[in-house]
Amino acid sequence: MRIAVDGMGGDHAPKEIVKGCVEALNDLEIEIILVGMQDQLEEELKKYTFDSTRLHIQHASEVITNEDKPVHAIRSKKDSSLVVGLNMVKEGSADAFVSAGNTGAILAGSIFKVGRIKGIDRPAIAAVYPTHKGISLLVDAGANAECKARNLLEFGVMGSIYAERVLGKSRPSIGLVNIGTEEGKGTDLIRDAHGLYQKVDLNYVGNAEARDLPKGIVDVIVCDGFIGNVILKLTEGVAMTMFTMLKEKFTENIMNKLGAAILMPSLREFKKTLDYSEYGGAPLLGVNGAVIKAHGSSNAKAIKNAIKQAKVFAEKEVVGMISNEIQKIGDEENVE
Amino acid sequence: MRIAVDGMGGDHAPKEIVKGCVEALNDLEIEIILVGMQDQLEEELKKYTFDSTRLHIQHASEVITNEDKPVHAIRSKKDSSLVVGLNMVKEGSADAFVSAGNTGAILAGSIFKVGRIKGIDRPAIAAVYPTHKGISLLVDAGANAECKARNLLEFGVMGSIYAERVLGKSRPSIGLVNIGTEEGKGTDLIRDAHGLYQKVDLNYVGNAEARDLPKGIVDVIVCDGFIGNVILKLTEGVAMTMFTMLKEKFTENIMNKLGAAILMPSLREFKKTLDYSEYGGAPLLGVNGAVIKAHGSSNAKAIKNAIKQAKVFAEKEVVGMISNEIQKIGDEENVE
Repeated sequence: MRIAVDGMGGDHAPKEIVKGCVEALNDLEIEIILVGMQDQLEEELKKYTFDSTRLHIQHASEVITNEDKPVHAIRSKKDSSLVVGLNMVKEGSADAFVSAGNTGAILAGSIFKVGRIKGIDRPAIAAVYPTHKGISLLVDAGANAECKARNLLEFGVMGSIYAERVLGKSRPSIGLVNIGTEEGKGTDLIRDAHGLYQKVDLNYVGNAEARDLPKGIVDVIVCDGFIGNVILKLTEGVAMTMFTMLKEKFTENIMNKLGAAILMPSLREFKKTLDYSEYGGAPLLGVNGAVIKAHGSSNAKAIKNAIKQAKVFAEKEVVGMISNEIQKIGDEENVE
Repeated sequence: MRIAVDGMGGDHAPKEIVKGCVEALNDLEIEIILVGMQDQLEEELKKYTFDSTRLHIQHASEVITNEDKPVHAIRSKKDSSLVVGLNMVKEGSADAFVSAGNTGAILAGSIFKVGRIKGIDRPAIAAVYPTHKGISLLVDAGANAECKARNLLEFGVMGSIYAERVLGKSRPSIGLVNIGTEEGKGTDLIRDAHGLYQKVDLNYVGNAEARDLPKGIVDVIVCDGFIGNVILKLTEGVAMTMFTMLKEKFTENIMNKLGAAILMPSLREFKKTLDYSEYGGAPLLGVNGAVIKAHGSSNAKAIKNAIKQAKVFAEKEVVGMISNEIQKIGDEENVE
């Protein structure tokens, strides 16, 4: 298993990326190809001891930044770490690719360079969503702000396969985010998507209300990328604001400080369940290869977990399974 | 000031409604007209002492339930407490109306019976949104799942006036919910609405990311009713799930129980900031009268606070101000 990693993408590149790669290398039976500026990557690698037969550098002379316009950057910076890494997946010299760089560029680059799976109209970003019951998978997390019903069906198909193969959920339940649980609620888009889901063999359980998502009511949360982005960011925002407000209460007086001190180990453990770096990155589903987008602010641990996730993504042949499933659905003309 | 209250709407009607009315009567210089089944309301009123010269019953022989289809219910149940109450606002025999009943029916009834303000295309439900900095106002909270750009502009105009007059915000800031803060982000709808906001004299501050809403980044949160509903319900869901998870941590062992016991008074106070019943109900904006939708599960305190809010809503002439503002904007042809 050879995993290419974008050494230059993310707020803490190359330092934390390189560190994460070394940690992953020590934990997993993989080969890593670090893509980026050779001198910078070598400089960082000097800090560590590792099995150098399993870690190689692939030089790339350019870097795509978060300020770059995605499509333009992919076309003009042909020797960027992102484009070089994606080309390795395309050519089969890497089994998977991990980047913490510019999300739009990773998405555009994956579509242009690696290509879409035949039958998939719109690839999506899938994000792990922490809940009371463990984790759910949210598709789409922001790739497609505007969607057709068919896209919402594809998101469910792909999310279901990923949740089963990589997250280990058996026959994952799929819910469509809606503003009520009754049939007929919501927009035309949702009603049309609901109709499409009735025709396929998936564990589709109907509408899911936003209120119930944090409880873990469904394994796969399906919505357009606008709503998905709102759900992810709002969940993070509410949790962070609650922690801030609790902290204020906890330091209000000496008794509260005492109470908080007692609870601190448990609170830290609790906060950990909401920490993105525990879960690795967000897979791009619908692309003809295993591509993982890690959080922009990824530290070494997050990168290590993203690499671990990329390994399972490639190993479990998620791309092939999505291709098969979509083929089956495409054959039933009435679902188009 | 005469406020009509739907005695039969809500999960705890008529008991909690009647109790809330009596409490409001004792607190505020108002007259209350309790609308609903005379015998049931009289039976409840027997429990309390109050100034009977300021509380009257208006008999209505029918009740619209949460199971009723809104439009059909408004047309067929002409002697329901909801329709009778709304007609009182229309005819001027009440200055405001409060109901904890069927949201869709209150909305449809308000539009059919009380009518829209001239120049307003779509009335909206405005909800108080608790934040770290106090409260924001969210428009639309669920009346219009699908919107045009012009609607999103109207929501800002109306929300701004309500936030200033009723919530006491000075020159309220208005933000459009989007999936990024940069101009040009999001959907065509958002970009078009953004263009309309540039042409009017409001304290419009641009895009607001969902992550920042709990911090209180803007006074008026503008979005379509689908997103608005997702934001409200998800905020509630995340907060409730976090409380549940914290509670589990707090009872895990004897030391944690001790720590939690010390913190309990502060935690209760904290939870109160998230309690809807503290804030009254949700005003219908764009309707030609002061109508407040109270939470379906309203207890007496929530009803009392909703009545208090209805009083200010009517007193501060919010409806007239919205009408003036919308007229001004309508005159500038380029905003249509």
